[in-house]
Amino acid sequence: MLASRIFINTLREAPAEAEIASHRLMLRAGYIEPLAAGIFNWQPLGLRVVQKIAGIVREEMNAAGAAEVLMPAVQPAELWHASGRWQVYGKELLRLQDRHERDYCVGPTHEEVVVDLVRRHVKSWRQLPLNLYQIQTKFRDEIRPRYGVMRAREFIMKDAYSFDRDAAGALASYQAMREAYSRIFDRIGLEYCIVAADSGAIGGSQSEEFLVLAASGEALLARAAAGYVNLDQVPCAAPDAKRPAAGEEMKKVDTPGVASIEELRGFLQQPPPPERCVKTMVAVGEKGMAAVLLAGADQLNLAKAGQHPAIGAGARLAEEAEVREAVGAGFGSLGPVGMPLPVVADLRLQPCADFACGANEDGKHLLGVNFGRDCPEPDYADLRLAAEGDAGADGKPLELRRGIEVGHIFYLGTKYSDAFKAVYESEDSGAQTMEMGCYGIGVTRIVAAAIEQGHDEHGVVLPAAIAPFEAAVLPLGHEEEVAKAARALYEALRAAGVDVLLDDRGLRAGRAFSDLDLVGVPHRLVVSKRSLAENATEYKPRTGGEARLLPLADAPAEIAKLVAAA
Amino acid sequence: MLASRIFINTLREAPAEAEIASHRLMLRAGYIEPLAAGIFNWQPLGLRVVQKIAGIVREEMNAAGAAEVLMPAVQPAELWHASGRWQVYGKELLRLQDRHERDYCVGPTHEEVVVDLVRRHVKSWRQLPLNLYQIQTKFRDEIRPRYGVMRAREFIMKDAYSFDRDAAGALASYQAMREAYSRIFDRIGLEYCIVAADSGAIGGSQSEEFLVLAASGEALLARAAAGYVNLDQVPCAAPDAKRPAAGEEMKKVDTPGVASIEELRGFLQQPPPPERCVKTMVAVGEKGMAAVLLAGADQLNLAKAGQHPAIGAGARLAEEAEVREAVGAGFGSLGPVGMPLPVVADLRLQPCADFACGANEDGKHLLGVNFGRDCPEPDYADLRLAAEGDAGADGKPLELRRGIEVGHIFYLGTKYSDAFKAVYESEDSGAQTMEMGCYGIGVTRIVAAAIEQGHDEHGVVLPAAIAPFEAAVLPLGHEEEVAKAARALYEALRAAGVDVLLDDRGLRAGRAFSDLDLVGVPHRLVVSKRSLAENATEYKPRTGGEARLLPLADAPAEIAKLVAAA
Repeated sequence: MLASRIFINTLREAPAEAEIASHRLMLRAGYIEPLAAGIFNWQPLGLRVVQKIAGIVREEMNAAGAAEVLMPAVQPAELWHASGRWQVYGKELLRLQDRHERDYCVGPTHEEVVVDLVRRHVKSWRQLPLNLYQIQTKFRDEIRPRYGVMRAREFIMKDAYSFDRDAAGALASYQAMREAYSRIFDRIGLEYCIVAADSGAIGGSQSEEFLVLAASGEALLARAAAGYVNLDQVPCAAPDAKRPAAGEEMKKVDTPGVASIEELRGFLQQPPPPERCVKTMVAVGEKGMAAVLLAGADQLNLAKAGQHPAIGAGARLAEEAEVREAVGAGFGSLGPVGMPLPVVADLRLQPCADFACGANEDGKHLLGVNFGRDCPEPDYADLRLAAEGDAGADGKPLELRRGIEVGHIFYLGTKYSDAFKAVYESEDSGAQTMEMGCYGIGVTRIVAAAIEQGHDEHGVVLPAAIAPFEAAVLPLGHEEEVAKAARALYEALRAAGVDVLLDDRGLRAGRAFSDLDLVGVPHRLVVSKRSLAENATEYKPRTGGEARLLPLADAPAEIAKLVAAA
Repeated sequence: MLASRIFINTLREAPAEAEIASHRLMLRAGYIEPLAAGIFNWQPLGLRVVQKIAGIVREEMNAAGAAEVLMPAVQPAELWHASGRWQVYGKELLRLQDRHERDYCVGPTHEEVVVDLVRRHVKSWRQLPLNLYQIQTKFRDEIRPRYGVMRAREFIMKDAYSFDRDAAGALASYQAMREAYSRIFDRIGLEYCIVAADSGAIGGSQSEEFLVLAASGEALLARAAAGYVNLDQVPCAAPDAKRPAAGEEMKKVDTPGVASIEELRGFLQQPPPPERCVKTMVAVGEKGMAAVLLAGADQLNLAKAGQHPAIGAGARLAEEAEVREAVGAGFGSLGPVGMPLPVVADLRLQPCADFACGANEDGKHLLGVNFGRDCPEPDYADLRLAAEGDAGADGKPLELRRGIEVGHIFYLGTKYSDAFKAVYESEDSGAQTMEMGCYGIGVTRIVAAAIEQGHDEHGVVLPAAIAPFEAAVLPLGHEEEVAKAARALYEALRAAGVDVLLDDRGLRAGRAFSDLDLVGVPHRLVVSKRSLAENATEYKPRTGGEARLLPLADAPAEIAKLVAAA
């Protein structure tokens, strides 16, 4: 490729709105260009990285026996009604109507479409197992798209769906995908971990996430015996303190405008310590709605809340309007006294006496409250998110890290095959429902995750497997012989199988060097009158090495070897 | 690839709604599966054909110096307002609103997005010329999607956009694309032609279509000195007859319910011949609205109407409501007498006297009408579509064929770069507006067009370059040695670079043969106990050859040679 033709648009400064390194560098290196919130143009350099990732994903999916399909981006609403998700999915589902006023959506995922396709064609056990995948553009109408392509609205995903005769087969398919994913991330060259995850709205009973370790990740991880676990999977033990006897009378105070524990403590003359300020939230899940109580400084772990029988799976925080309807007061004024909803309290509140909480009346709080005396004893459960300083299972303090989710594998069971009546004739026991799994990889998100993990003060540092080019030849000077030798070296590198850029833009040396560093070319080969005097090119790796002369005749084989070894 | 894993879903019968061969065969061969009107799943076999076409397109576009990008499917309305097309585009534009009620569309084309991207980055003449392309899923909300992927709503297109310093550069870019397209269709292996075309709503002043010749094509072509021309580009000469003197008095007759020339002639006791029955329509273009008159049996050529100064570019037929408002009568009762709109008559009407026409009153016609006596002499122009039996430019009868549009190249000039102020600093004359071209290839439509051109009573017959597999190895019989030899042959073919399928489904011979013929595998290699007795495989080409034994040791090189020669 010639640099003059492939629209290299590097910037000296990143736009101010870019908050994380990968977003800044993808803009500066001209990988992407924003078009609207969470919607991007992929410029040639960025697209090359996407295509290299997609190529590795495709090879490993094919090697694992999966078959590639391409399902539509625009999906009819009927299928989503059949699964029940047209209602459930919420505003992230981009709904639309066609010219005949029929309902469609721009697909955020394809469980409905694929199970509909498979049930039409698979009739016999002989046709199973089956794994269909696609690499395709998806849309999720995120309320707050941010961090560039990390949390975009339009993005490219590899999604795969397995169909098996029974649960044992489905778990074998799941395991095969787990291994394929590991090979994919190994080949891409990322430091990643696999953690157990909550299945959330997708459904199913087993799932794991693949996370790229990076300080900017949204996922909180704790080191465990083998690798890492999701922080929300870390249980918190009950404190061994006993509850002291009540020492205060309950008293209602006016707290106009107070909306949080911090504000309450700032407002009161003699505030109780945070562990005696009770924070009350309302959680809603499959089973119902409940008030959840935590000590003031603790964070709610919704995954744990979802395990309580009064709340159930898919737990979320209630909206203020729902809370007001159920309780008669808004956020910031809630509490257990007179609470009409079931009350679940975190284990840490078990030894808590004489506490402050909302009065279930706007602008009022209660002080000196005691469970059992002023309100019924709540149900206690482990509700809080483990935090820095907590003890892990081994008794030692938790070691926390952050990760970026780039892959997710689910064993789905029969959730979708039941809804769509995806049955087959089994070998010996009549009609059976297929067992499914689904498996996603965020192809475009990997670009950002790889840059979060790989960058320095000069720009992007990507593994050669996914860098936009493996090498660049840069002629310096306007002499005819330099241009000719650079072209010959470029052709020789191509012939040696190296994905190489010829930087024919005629930039000054400093600008060209910083450009090639910024966009992340791992191997740079300068051709100049001086290097030609030695019949050589001046070779410099992007990281970890000084420039050195490499004989022109040896360079192609040498660079091909370095690329292969990376 | 193993046939047991890639979801081969052949059908004995095509669904009744499939009207043309390619649609029937794509359903029967399991290339596609309909999901909604004009929206399809691409199953593995069909997707392989799409990917092979896309691969050829990508290679030739890169070789022509174009750079690949990927623009979003979902586009903000602002850009379409800037070009004026948000209003103009009509209902084919799939509009939608996001969760914040902002307007977007699912892109049917990307002129707006690409010119916006380029104007942000190209500032200097040094950055031009530039050609950006993408291979991407598009959506056009066709009112009547039909013929499978031939006229689908969601489809894959390669769209390219060139940016040049001046018109001469733009025309050179246009020419480079014309040559790249020719190489693409040559490599795919289709019989095609290039014809001059009307630029239509895209704008611009020069355009050509690439058409695959096939009897089911929607485009009518006439053979010309070099290749073919679009039938609507064929001029029709003025007749050399002179107009006889008027012989009848004008007379108004009641014609209740008569809406066409055929109905008029059926209704009248002594109808004039069709060439003296004048058909009146109303055309609207950029410049205005006019009545257009044709002899009863002739068809209007809207492209020609658009060249008349009273009508102008983008000519279309007026809607009945528009006609009624302008004339006071509806379709079927229009005529030149008392017509308030400008009147343009086809050259064939010049020698026409004593004719019948509508009276511009519903349910009434006039007989014995004469130009110059009963109404003003109209403006005469070549308006009719040339037809079978007309003389061509060489005096011989026109030879007509049909074609399927698979590519279209446009020289756009500054239509979009003006609207978006896409200017650059020129080398010597200050700020200049970029000159643009745009170039489309219907990637998914090519699959259908290739099958229209290539099929027989057994199924799909595709060139090896785009067949789903180049060859298939088919073991017959359940003996261990057969399975082992088939697997070894399959591996040897892969090693020889042949894209080969191992048909491990264990079907009976007849079913497997008809399946492989139906899906269009060009080279079939059967391994059986009988063939192994000769240390051979039984080779049969999909078309034009008998089965013959091929020594196992020679088969890989032989098949690789046949594939390369195709």
